[in-house]
Amino acid sequence: MRFVHETRPQRVRFGSGTAPDAVAEEVERLGAHRVMVIASPAARDAADRITAGLPLALRHHEVVMHVPTEVAARAHQAAVEARADAVVSIGGGSATGLAKAVALASGLPVVAVPTTYAGSEATAVWGTTDGSRKTTGSDPRVLPRAVVYDAELTLSLPVGMSVASGLNAVAHCVDSMWSPGSDPIDRTLAAEGIRALAEGLPLVTAGPADLRGRELALYGAYVSAVAFSSAGSGLHHRICHVLGGAYRLPHAQTHAIVLPHVLALNAPYAPEAQARMARAFDAGSALAGLDRLRRAVDAPRALGDVGLRRADVSAAAGLILPVVPPDNPAPVTRAVLERLLTAAWNGDDPA
Amino acid sequence: MRFVHETRPQRVRFGSGTAPDAVAEEVERLGAHRVMVIASPAARDAADRITAGLPLALRHHEVVMHVPTEVAARAHQAAVEARADAVVSIGGGSATGLAKAVALASGLPVVAVPTTYAGSEATAVWGTTDGSRKTTGSDPRVLPRAVVYDAELTLSLPVGMSVASGLNAVAHCVDSMWSPGSDPIDRTLAAEGIRALAEGLPLVTAGPADLRGRELALYGAYVSAVAFSSAGSGLHHRICHVLGGAYRLPHAQTHAIVLPHVLALNAPYAPEAQARMARAFDAGSALAGLDRLRRAVDAPRALGDVGLRRADVSAAAGLILPVVPPDNPAPVTRAVLERLLTAAWNGDDPA
Repeated sequence: MRFVHETRPQRVRFGSGTAPDAVAEEVERLGAHRVMVIASPAARDAADRITAGLPLALRHHEVVMHVPTEVAARAHQAAVEARADAVVSIGGGSATGLAKAVALASGLPVVAVPTTYAGSEATAVWGTTDGSRKTTGSDPRVLPRAVVYDAELTLSLPVGMSVASGLNAVAHCVDSMWSPGSDPIDRTLAAEGIRALAEGLPLVTAGPADLRGRELALYGAYVSAVAFSSAGSGLHHRICHVLGGAYRLPHAQTHAIVLPHVLALNAPYAPEAQARMARAFDAGSALAGLDRLRRAVDAPRALGDVGLRRADVSAAAGLILPVVPPDNPAPVTRAVLERLLTAAWNGDDPA
Repeated sequence: MRFVHETRPQRVRFGSGTAPDAVAEEVERLGAHRVMVIASPAARDAADRITAGLPLALRHHEVVMHVPTEVAARAHQAAVEARADAVVSIGGGSATGLAKAVALASGLPVVAVPTTYAGSEATAVWGTTDGSRKTTGSDPRVLPRAVVYDAELTLSLPVGMSVASGLNAVAHCVDSMWSPGSDPIDRTLAAEGIRALAEGLPLVTAGPADLRGRELALYGAYVSAVAFSSAGSGLHHRICHVLGGAYRLPHAQTHAIVLPHVLALNAPYAPEAQARMARAFDAGSALAGLDRLRRAVDAPRALGDVGLRRADVSAAAGLILPVVPPDNPAPVTRAVLERLLTAAWNGDDPA
């Protein structure tokens, strides 16, 4: 047992229907008197309710996916002009991401109110894009000082997006089991994420207004992000990164399709991780548990259905090979990757 | 699901045989050039090896149980006179406690190197004693900035003390399942603590030099302390606090004897916690798992054997009743406490 684990400071508040009071209390704890509210247009009504009692300096609604640098610069400029002393973000990963960009430029503290299962609020990672060029980094200043989780804010997230975002969180958990920085604390939190998501996502699918399912999914997304931000990206995320970048495959579907094949490959070489996941899924094996979850939420099964051409499989394997983590549990050759991608392309049973 | 969870910042390094290099790296990260080393007399040889490469300002060996205020004052004075800019503590709870007292008075950062399973290094709680009067408090400044866990340093801890200290850590986990501040993150870490301690302590009992057992126990003690310091003290610790204070019963043995009776009382009223613990023990029920562990380490079974008089049971119940947490899972009356203490006094089967 040999590892270094860095626990980062953050206050997390969880409670359905509590966001207005909780945000007000967190703003007061920060001693802030001039709050900048960043909210995606979709979260405008929620922002009205949540920020009614706050000492507002300005509201900012220019939230754009992938945080373009000029959007970040305008938000920072607005914060400076309004002499804001804290940022409250309300929305999905793009709203949180913009608040982080403002924090990076200004040092302002952030209180995040997530409305999806993206998990960005639990990490110190920031990212901006300039045209097609993406810049990312990690900085303790961008980690929100407090996060307010209110599952009522997620009730309007459509089932399809909920499932895609939730399976992405499951992928964070599975990859955290064996990614290069994985330690027992990460694996503990990742298993807890699997437990909560495997229970919550089917409830959300069965009834999008099921508050208990929403709470479990939101909580599971939080712990999965904490685990993943410490453990780092493993084989699964390396594969999906290449497929998304080189072949423009849709992010969430690609994750859902590839994940069981990576799990089937690695599980026999990672018995402790596989046992943890099996217990978390409450299933005979990790793979059986993931399969049951994917059936329950009707996850996509074949890369051939989401835009990858059969002829690209071999070249994709060649692109992935150089970025395979050297300490991946299962040995990985180009032939192994071709078999894995072929099975995922066909939608074969991963077992 | 409604909770507030505060995650506190700390770097944790784990690795058998790595303490000298790890401590040097952590001191360098702090930018410290004048290190005060606090080491219990028993840890003097270990301190020689671990601190050989450090920029030392002074070594301090006056470490006394319960951190008497005059001992704390002398240590602080020594730190000031030596113009120390960081403290490295090596030893059990008393050495860590003294370093925390110095940190409280001076603001100096602490790197802790624990040699027992006390867990104090993972909490922001400090305590000093003035005669028989104990003062405790919580302050973010006393939380060690880094902890270096090196299980080789625990190989000389006698089996009896290892088991007592380890069962105390198990009690942290069990009480964290239902103490007033308990949240799902605490319960996740507490279950992980149970898993590691239930596997590690029998290995230590079977062979005190078993490094894997030592690593598991040390790691389990760490996560148990993180959980407990967030969740706070529940019914079990309230009972043991009264028994220890009013009847001078030995700390560790009292914990070992009382714990299964509290578990038997609360488990039927805390099904989620009981299921988590059963999985962590890898047993049919939490109680069966704890019972198996207690047999494996030959834990004491009866309060009558450790100094409580049968005639004191009723009065003890009266003393405990006012400090029972109001939200304890099982309803607790004086009669319930009397039955519990009687069973613990006899050494009855808790089931």
